[in-house]
Amino acid sequence: MNTNSSNIMALAPNTSNKRETVCIFGTGDFGRALGHKMIQSGYPVVYGSRSTQMSNLIPKDAEVLSHAEAAQKAAIIIIAIQRQHYHFLTPLAEILRGKVVVDISNNLKLNQYPESNAEYLAQLLPGAKVVKAFNTVSAWALQSGALDASRQVFVCGDDAEAKQMVMNIVRALGLTPLDQGSLLAAQEIENYPLQLFPMWKFPIFLSLGLTAFFFFYCLALDVIYTYIYEKNNFSFFIAFTIPNRICPVMALILLALVYLPGVLAAIIQLYRGTKYRRFPDWLDKWMLCRKQLGLIALAFASLHAVFSLASPMRAFVKWRTGKGIISQALNNRTEPLDTTNAWLSDSYLALGILGFFFFVLVGITSLPSVSNNVNWREFRFVQSKLGYLTLILCTAHTLVYGGKWFLSPSAYRWYLPNIYMLSLVVPCTVLVIKFVLVFPCVDKPLTQIRQGWERNPKYSE
Amino acid sequence: MNTNSSNIMALAPNTSNKRETVCIFGTGDFGRALGHKMIQSGYPVVYGSRSTQMSNLIPKDAEVLSHAEAAQKAAIIIIAIQRQHYHFLTPLAEILRGKVVVDISNNLKLNQYPESNAEYLAQLLPGAKVVKAFNTVSAWALQSGALDASRQVFVCGDDAEAKQMVMNIVRALGLTPLDQGSLLAAQEIENYPLQLFPMWKFPIFLSLGLTAFFFFYCLALDVIYTYIYEKNNFSFFIAFTIPNRICPVMALILLALVYLPGVLAAIIQLYRGTKYRRFPDWLDKWMLCRKQLGLIALAFASLHAVFSLASPMRAFVKWRTGKGIISQALNNRTEPLDTTNAWLSDSYLALGILGFFFFVLVGITSLPSVSNNVNWREFRFVQSKLGYLTLILCTAHTLVYGGKWFLSPSAYRWYLPNIYMLSLVVPCTVLVIKFVLVFPCVDKPLTQIRQGWERNPKYSE
Amino acid sequence: MNTNSSNIMALAPNTSNKRETVCIFGTGDFGRALGHKMIQSGYPVVYGSRSTQMSNLIPKDAEVLSHAEAAQKAAIIIIAIQRQHYHFLTPLAEILRGKVVVDISNNLKLNQYPESNAEYLAQLLPGAKVVKAFNTVSAWALQSGALDASRQVFVCGDDAEAKQMVMNIVRALGLTPLDQGSLLAAQEIENYPLQLFPMWKFPIFLSLGLTAFFFFYCLALDVIYTYIYEKNNFSFFIAFTIPNRICPVMALILLALVYLPGVLAAIIQLYRGTKYRRFPDWLDKWMLCRKQLGLIALAFASLHAVFSLASPMRAFVKWRTGKGIISQALNNRTEPLDTTNAWLSDSYLALGILGFFFFVLVGITSLPSVSNNVNWREFRFVQSKLGYLTLILCTAHTLVYGGKWFLSPSAYRWYLPNIYMLSLVVPCTVLVIKFVLVFPCVDKPLTQIRQGWERNPKYSE
Repeated sequence: MNTNSSNIMALAPNTSNKRETVCIFGTGDFGRALGHKMIQSGYPVVYGSRSTQMSNLIPKDAEVLSHAEAAQKAAIIIIAIQRQHYHFLTPLAEILRGKVVVDISNNLKLNQYPESNAEYLAQLLPGAKVVKAFNTVSAWALQSGALDASRQVFVCGDDAEAKQMVMNIVRALGLTPLDQGSLLAAQEIENYPLQLFPMWKFPIFLSLGLTAFFFFYCLALDVIYTYIYEKNNFSFFIAFTIPNRICPVMALILLALVYLPGVLAAIIQLYRGTKYRRFPDWLDKWMLCRKQLGLIALAFASLHAVFSLASPMRAFVKWRTGKGIISQALNNRTEPLDTTNAWLSDSYLALGILGFFFFVLVGITSLPSVSNNVNWREFRFVQSKLGYLTLILCTAHTLVYGGKWFLSPSAYRWYLPNIYMLSLVVPCTVLVIKFVLVFPCVDKPLTQIRQGWERNPKYSE
Repeated sequence: MNTNSSNIMALAPNTSNKRETVCIFGTGDFGRALGHKMIQSGYPVVYGSRSTQMSNLIPKDAEVLSHAEAAQKAAIIIIAIQRQHYHFLTPLAEILRGKVVVDISNNLKLNQYPESNAEYLAQLLPGAKVVKAFNTVSAWALQSGALDASRQVFVCGDDAEAKQMVMNIVRALGLTPLDQGSLLAAQEIENYPLQLFPMWKFPIFLSLGLTAFFFFYCLALDVIYTYIYEKNNFSFFIAFTIPNRICPVMALILLALVYLPGVLAAIIQLYRGTKYRRFPDWLDKWMLCRKQLGLIALAFASLHAVFSLASPMRAFVKWRTGKGIISQALNNRTEPLDTTNAWLSDSYLALGILGFFFFVLVGITSLPSVSNNVNWREFRFVQSKLGYLTLILCTAHTLVYGGKWFLSPSAYRWYLPNIYMLSLVVPCTVLVIKFVLVFPCVDKPLTQIRQGWERNPKYSE
Repeated sequence: MNTNSSNIMALAPNTSNKRETVCIFGTGDFGRALGHKMIQSGYPVVYGSRSTQMSNLIPKDAEVLSHAEAAQKAAIIIIAIQRQHYHFLTPLAEILRGKVVVDISNNLKLNQYPESNAEYLAQLLPGAKVVKAFNTVSAWALQSGALDASRQVFVCGDDAEAKQMVMNIVRALGLTPLDQGSLLAAQEIENYPLQLFPMWKFPIFLSLGLTAFFFFYCLALDVIYTYIYEKNNFSFFIAFTIPNRICPVMALILLALVYLPGVLAAIIQLYRGTKYRRFPDWLDKWMLCRKQLGLIALAFASLHAVFSLASPMRAFVKWRTGKGIISQALNNRTEPLDTTNAWLSDSYLALGILGFFFFVLVGITSLPSVSNNVNWREFRFVQSKLGYLTLILCTAHTLVYGGKWFLSPSAYRWYLPNIYMLSLVVPCTVLVIKFVLVFPCVDKPLTQIRQGWERNPKYSE
């Protein structure tokens, strides 16, 4: 819906609307944008400002008064000024007593101050009901109606009624309020818009580190070794061949790392004989970033798929193909079809395609809108059953493709294994443990433990 | 937002919060997880338990009392015990009179008991206001904050006020309540988390059945026939060639089956001269699983696309290409470019790519978050207009690709038609009927009927 | 959840439910569907109709009375009759005084009447509290439960309480109410379901226009020129080669057009020395359709990717490859590997794949459900940082691929530049300006301006 034009229409005065008056302290960018939006939604708005001169930037239907006068006109006061000016509010403490005071401020960096801005405000105005809200919304998004980014407004405060009033306003502006509890949550809420993918940090650094390691490993074995011992300049492998060797390795390892904490947790539970003891912290954290690990693995798998599909277009591949055919032609013979080779080639391609297909399927179900529409059992079926199927297919794809390398001495340049072999260590470990865990004699006690049974009920933490 | 750390902070006592006390009967897994989450959201929690000994697993800020004492402290009692122990509650019926009693239980299989657990509870406690809720949420998800799977909480109950109280709690916990009506809906709600893609069952079984049929059909004609009559061992076709022959056939047939019920419905409406009579049951069910059929068709189409793009990498294809070139080289001649062939080859590739492109577009709009952001007219435009365009392009792709086979006797091995021809039956039927329906002399009465006009107003069912 | 069967169960009478009675005027399609759904959700429903004869299409649990009698039984009256019959309601104005009257009507075309239907109704019934709602929901979707398309119900009205009552009903039916303000928004709400992708119109027309231009440009230079001067019939280029030449050009130009308004806005702000003056209208509109431009660019890029990957399957490419190999074989020589060529070929492929990868990543984050789960900083990081990275990679891909053409005279057929060169104009311009803007001496004042600083504070619009 073209919110813009709708807003312009709704701007006209509608006297019959009975919304309560809202007061905004501060006529800066965000104060103006919020006031504008509120007037559009039918709220009478009063600005509290040091200079009560009417600026042409302030919405036309709003009044501008002194702070004290403005505050007296409304039950809700929105503080759209920066934290360093909060002390100006101290003289108003009496007027603001019992009123709902909304802190919308943000800081410039994480944990900039010892206490959150909202808590600081609550200390300055002991009688006011301070509510934290609106800090996750940008002025530009409010004005342009381009609320593509989060419509979620985190709200917290110690007074339930005050919070409810603010959440009603949030809803009236077309945004989604999310109650985050008491004012103690304000620090967290203020940190939220400053965060840059916090859950992704560890998985991304892990991936970058592993990628760098494998890049230099491949560079040494594929380019430098070849140059030294075979006098071939394959430096152009850096652009295509090596990335397409790293991507599948990374995808497989990261995918296996998604399922490794699950089998480790099962082993720990079996060993302890109870599920009522906390897992070690590293395992807890690992389990919480499985989704991110899986999605990065999917990204690598996608790159591998496109790189592989694009490889017939490479000048090098065309040259190699041509050379092979010409040498046959010059020798005046046609090689017969090697059926074993055809089987191997077709199998690993088919396994890879199917593995990638299920991988994408699992990835699609982790889209928030899809996972919101399935129940818990369906979600677990896709993420666990289809996920393991993906892992099995991808491991098989790698095994069929690189199986012949294991016995070939040429694969051990400088006595180092090819990275195909390295990539198989984690997935094979996970699959072997999982295979053991599926046996009835192991699965049965594990299921019992997970249903609450304890081998040794007298435990203490 | 890292809900975990936020929760830890908000756990500290905040006395000014005025949320009502909630009582939880049962200190099992789910009872504890729910209590924990509620304390984090600012609710005082009292546990009712047979042994009032404080376990170290119970949230620290919660009280543990006997059932009777705990129930007296709160207006809302959450029953976190299993159905088979519900009869323990009978002596408490008097204390629970007039209170909101929340049934959160789940069963182990669909329709395990004649009446739902919530209705059974309502019979045991005739004076209590029983509300069904929370059964779709898992304890693990509540504890870990990893609410990736559904945040939806289905709520039902006969007392509107009691339901509203429960829905407020659901919202405060950061979940989304969905009012499902009276307590009669409890059975449905209890069955919900036990379901495994109920709408997908028929489409998936249909696809599996058709896939198996086409697999053996292809196996007979492509592998066994070739082996018997041409002494060629093409068994490796099983891994790649046959899947890539089945996928497009399945995609085309399933896509046509998405649009077949629509044209059948139009024919029925035209024949009856009214839209006010119900369609036969099978047609109703078919129409409700069109989305699923379409998505499975898209999955097959995607597999076909990737299989086709990967085919130049196959050892068999490389060998065949090489053989062709070598035989030309040995005969010392270069074949000129066959322009007709180039036209056919380029056309069917371009038609296929465009068809797949529009197919993916239609698929993307069926993502819940996208379809929620378009209006009804836009949704129908994409699903109907673009859908038909997809069907036309894909049918044309198949016709251009396989057209030459129709007249070639070698395509009729064992007097059976090639599966390309089989795959064209349904889509061509749909397109021909649709083409007829678009004619003004047919379209006009149909539009009138759909707007409510009746040819023969006196009908009876 | 299979809403259907749940609904059938919940249809049974439940006397303890205390929902208020709802009256529906009109027993047409939508009136019946809405009544049905309301009864399922526990509302007693009374129909007001001219003929009080019970039709077998009306839900069995509903009463049918005369308009006047029905209206007296309920506080909420839903008007499910067409605007042209609204004057029948004038005699009922007295009975409807003070009641909530819900207008659910739609028109057949945009702005069909001078005032919205809801406002017209409010004029006819001056004492009634008119609320606009439900017009975006289709009768079929209500009946079948197939609410795949929008569950959003826009609600507007001048009376806040009346609006709240209607919004509660909307929620009880499992739909999402969105408060749009006063009744003045009704026109907008009535236009909404008649719109067909209004935000997409300009980007799509622009793309179609540019595509047509480039098609004829390529047709002239690649097919007609070749036919006239080289006597080669390359007419089949129309099917594959030309589309695959247009798609990347369109993708690159449209992607650059996404980032052009941003740099233009920066220049304007720098020139004016303030951010408090409105941008020209065309720039505002351009900025609001950047998402659509970007998604169309992504569609072209995807088509280019698939076309390119499919090219080895083309008969023409196979023939050309074969010809090249045969001529080498006949000349009895094998060309050595051209390392520079291998570098160029591998680089442009790798750059293109990476560019496409980041493009898809940016595209995924513009899915509503994903963008709702990131904060404003994360959204801007992806859309701006990753977007520019995409633009740089794609421009580099084009430069490496087509760089050699710049100096080759054969690229200037009829003294016209190849379209590769045309496609580079806009992206290179954007990147050069952006590069300048990133310099500290330009970036610092720009940042200050964007934070509210003004070079010349005395401005007036």
